[in-house]
Order: sequence, then C-alpha cells, then structure tokens
Amino acid sequence: MIPVRLVSVGKAVPSRTVSSESLDASLGRPPGYTFKKSGVRSRFFAAADESQSALGARALHDALRNASLGVDAIDLLISACGVPQQALPNTACFIAAAAGLPAGTPAFDVNASCLGFLAALQVAGGLLASGAYARIAIVSSDLASRGIDWDDAEASLIFGDGAAAVILERGTAEQGIRAVKFATYPEGRHLCEIRGGGTARNPRAGAVPADYLFRMDGKAVFKLAVQLLPAFLDELMARSGAGLDALDVVVPHQASALGLLHAAKKIGVPEAKLVRIYETHGNQVAASIPTALYEAVMTGRARPGQRVLMMGTAAGLTIGGLILDL
Amino acid sequence: MIPVRLVSVGKAVPSRTVSSESLDASLGRPPGYTFKKSGVRSRFFAAADESQSALGARALHDALRNASLGVDAIDLLISACGVPQQALPNTACFIAAAAGLPAGTPAFDVNASCLGFLAALQVAGGLLASGAYARIAIVSSDLASRGIDWDDAEASLIFGDGAAAVILERGTAEQGIRAVKFATYPEGRHLCEIRGGGTARNPRAGAVPADYLFRMDGKAVFKLAVQLLPAFLDELMARSGAGLDALDVVVPHQASALGLLHAAKKIGVPEAKLVRIYETHGNQVAASIPTALYEAVMTGRARPGQRVLMMGTAAGLTIGGLILDL
Repeated sequence: MIPVRLVSVGKAVPSRTVSSESLDASLGRPPGYTFKKSGVRSRFFAAADESQSALGARALHDALRNASLGVDAIDLLISACGVPQQALPNTACFIAAAAGLPAGTPAFDVNASCLGFLAALQVAGGLLASGAYARIAIVSSDLASRGIDWDDAEASLIFGDGAAAVILERGTAEQGIRAVKFATYPEGRHLCEIRGGGTARNPRAGAVPADYLFRMDGKAVFKLAVQLLPAFLDELMARSGAGLDALDVVVPHQASALGLLHAAKKIGVPEAKLVRIYETHGNQVAASIPTALYEAVMTGRARPGQRVLMMGTAAGLTIGGLILDL
Repeated sequence: MIPVRLVSVGKAVPSRTVSSESLDASLGRPPGYTFKKSGVRSRFFAAADESQSALGARALHDALRNASLGVDAIDLLISACGVPQQALPNTACFIAAAAGLPAGTPAFDVNASCLGFLAALQVAGGLLASGAYARIAIVSSDLASRGIDWDDAEASLIFGDGAAAVILERGTAEQGIRAVKFATYPEGRHLCEIRGGGTARNPRAGAVPADYLFRMDGKAVFKLAVQLLPAFLDELMARSGAGLDALDVVVPHQASALGLLHAAKKIGVPEAKLVRIYETHGNQVAASIPTALYEAVMTGRARPGQRVLMMGTAAGLTIGGLILDL
C-alpha cells in the first residue's frame, strides 16, 4: 500500500458544447450519423483563443477551491497531458503560469499518453512516500480538437476537449494505492499517433500538415487490447489481494463506445459501479480518467472508505490500472 | 535520504562528429568564428536516418552491458528527454521498441526540459522507496540538431546530439538522494522554446516552419538564472545538511560556456571537482547532465562513497539540483 489521500478533485471544460447533430450538419452527413458512428451525443471543443494550459489551470483552481486551499498550498505540480502545449518547454510551466502558482513552485510533466494521469498518480504516491513533497497537484488537460483529421470518419468523431485535476497528500495506512500495474507493448506504437511535433518529422525534413493530425487504426488497437486485457486485469487484482467484488467504483478510460462496452463485460462488475461520461464528453485523452473520477466523487458515487479501480489503454500501446482506496 | 543506488551508466553519440571549423566553412563564417561564439570545439549530429529513440536505446544497452544485465532486467523505463520524438505517443514507447525491451515492460516519460534527468532521478527514488519497482532505467536522448535555426548565431552553435542512461536500484541507508530541489519560474517560459509541436500552434492554425525551430533569448535567461541561483544553491545545501566542501564532484548542466563559467564561480568549488564535457559535446539538452555523469563515473572521478551535486537551469525556466551519495 502506498499511502495517498485524495484531498479534492477539479474539472474544467472549454466554452463550446458541440452536439453530434451540429457535427452532422457541418460535416455534410445525414442526421444521426455522428452519434451512430461514435456513441457521443455531445462534447466540448476549445475556441481558437482557449489554450490547453488555461483550461488545465481552471481545473486546478476548481480542485483548490474544493479543498479550500490557495495556489500557495501546492508543493509540486505534475502536468499529465497526452499531448504537450508545445515541444519545449514542458507543459507544467504553462499551467503554472496560467494558474498563477507562486514563482518557484516545482513543476514537471509525466506522460503516458491517455494514461498519464494514472502514471502521475503512481509517481505522486512515490514522492509523497519518500517525503519529498507534502501536497501534490496533478493536472491533465488535452485539446484533442486541435489534431482532429475531419476526413477520418473513425477517429474524428469520438474526441472532446477537457481538463481535470486532483490534490493529493500522504494517506493513512488504510488510504492509498492498493495496487498498480502498467504494461507497454511498443508493437502498438504506430496504431494511435501524431507523427509530427518532435524530432522524427519536422518541416525542414519534409513533414506535411497531415503529420500533425491524429491517426489511428482502431480495429488493430482494439484487437491488441482485447487480447492483453484479461491477463492484465487478473494480475492487477492479484496484486490488490482481493477480488472484483471488493471494488466499489470502476473508472475506465472513456476511449470509445466499443471499448467501454468491452471493459464493462470483461471487468464483469455491475453496470451501477461503472462510471461513464463518454456520451457527454467523448474521449478526452489523458483528461478522461480524472474527469470521470471527478464525476464519481462529486456525485457521491466514490466516497471515503471505498475502493476505486481506474484502468484503460493508451497510445503506445500502454495498458494501465490503479486501485485506490479512498 | 531517499535510498537509491546508481548501478551503472551508459552513453551514446550519433555517427557524425562536427568540428567548429567545419561549421565555420558550411556557414560561410571566418575560421574560428564558431568556437569563439560558442566555446564548443566539436559536437555530434545525428544523420537523417538516425532517430532519437535508437540513440537512447544504444545508451540503455551500454548501461545494461556495464552492469552485466539483459533487457529483461528492467522493471520500469523512464524516458527523460527534453523534446519528444513525436507528439503522441510518449517517447518511452519508441525507446522500448528500439531497445528490444520485453513486451509489457512499463514505460513512461518525465519531462522537465533540460532537467528531465534530475526530475526522473527523483521520481525513480520515490518509486524505489515505495517498493513499486526494484530496478529502473532512465534514458535521456535529445537531437537538438533537428530544431536548430541556422540563422540564429547565438543559439545555433552551442548544441550537440547525444544520449545517456542509468540503471538504478534501491540503495542502502548511506546511498542515495541526500537532497533535492526544483523551482520553476514560468515568467521565463518563452525565453527558450520551440513553439510548435503541440496544441498551441499547428499547421491548420497557421503555424509556420520557424515555429518548429528552437529560439532563445540567452541574455534574459542568463540574467534570470544568475539572480535566482545563489539562494537556490544555499537552500539545496541546507537541505543536504552539509556544506560545499562535502561535495566530491559537481556535474553542472553543460548549458553554455558562460553558464559553466558562472556556475564554477558561484558554486565556488575547485575546478578539479567540476565535470565539463561542453567543449567536446556542446549542450545536449536533457542528455547533458547524464552524459557528464557518465564521464565522471567511467573516468573514476565519481566513485562509490562520494557525494555528487548535479545542477542546472532549463527552459521553463526551471532550476534544479540533486545531491547523490554514490
């Protein structure tokens, strides 16, 4: 057990709500097409003047407000976004600026694509355990809309923008990370990707605008994930020393309608324990899991004393799961 | 004290050695210009077909060889690069693939621009302390050459490409991270940057090729760093419970000739304790500190029982320092 206490949660969404009907119209599709293809009824898209870091800062402020804390209460900011705001410097610097954190507050990034929030939770648990910091904020903010290829019917309709944050302190002996497991299968590294933006492709070396758009082979990802998930879940539960019936709430990554359906069936917990926000948010990349956690906490579905499983798959391909005793 | 044992170090440089004389010639400058401007005699540049992840994998293999370990000995890979290989997924997936790590090895990124290696060391210390992993590899690999603006006389001449890796295990009570401090001053976030590559600027929103090149206001960075470093160093040393004379080796970030000179004067340790590889490597972004640590360890300047200070400034602006008892 790694002692971690979830002090508070926060959430932010950008200003524009975009219904699937309005996407049908703007994409020249028949009414109902977008919902049928994606399972999303509406999602949020940032306006051109809204930034990833400003959205993340709003989520952080919300989490601080929910804990009655000020910006000076944070000993370390971890940014856990799927895609950076720019190639250099790291995104935490921009979130710290937008949030008005006191100058000198430590800030770095943890990135495990859609599972960055879970990796950051494990990192924060270790840092709290080592005594390096007393209070840590994690912020996940992603603007998937900036990289959508509207010619890609499969990948363009499932995403939404958003941000979420948590404040963490050291927990008691009964409170914290009960079990955690990550597994990366690099054979899947090109199945979900944005090929530009780093050292591999750039304009001088002939990069084209399409290299900066998200592309995915959804069928291949699903096939790989389905093959790997059962053994992964067994191992994670074994590490927790208890069975699925000990779980009070399950927060899956809100990857896709098919992914959620499969997760529900495979994890085999009652529907009432599953947190779903996909229909009203879409896939929010790294912000999906913490936004769903926010909904579970704020609606009272996840309460102190309960056991929460957060789990999902991410571009990479990475599978991750973390069992948190609240 | 966070118990961490430095098991081994590894290093890799790309195939091309580029002297300052050859840069003088190719840039149409008089002989001696590049060295005089930069203080670098030669650096390594990757060829077009060399990738950041392949270079990182070579450094990791070197570290594994130096510890007589195989690729299956790694419980967690942390990529700690300044700039990613591509925007999505995270760079650790590509390094894991290039290194041939067993499928399922956990792999994520820690990013604090030029100080990513130090942040990853602290993260690894926490994870080892929490018992989550028994053996962790950190790999820093950067290809600065991919983002050099050759029209910028100040920023174009100081950089070089390279990679370095370390293998870490849990240390004894006398072995590990004695003190650590990070401080981010987001007022400096636009002083060193690559503006493209993320959600802020992309081709659809009017990004231009120059947005994918590194730009810096060196004077402003230097001014900010010089103003902040003395108090930072005092606080770090106070955390270590000992003075500068307890340091056996000082590994500064190899940022620039002026930066190194200033660090040597301000830290006030004898020249013989300072590790400098800048003249033969240039500024290798996040790979600079671990490459300099590699040189110190492999030449016997840093030995078990000794105390090493690693310290520097990074785009962000982030200042970081870590005191490791070997």
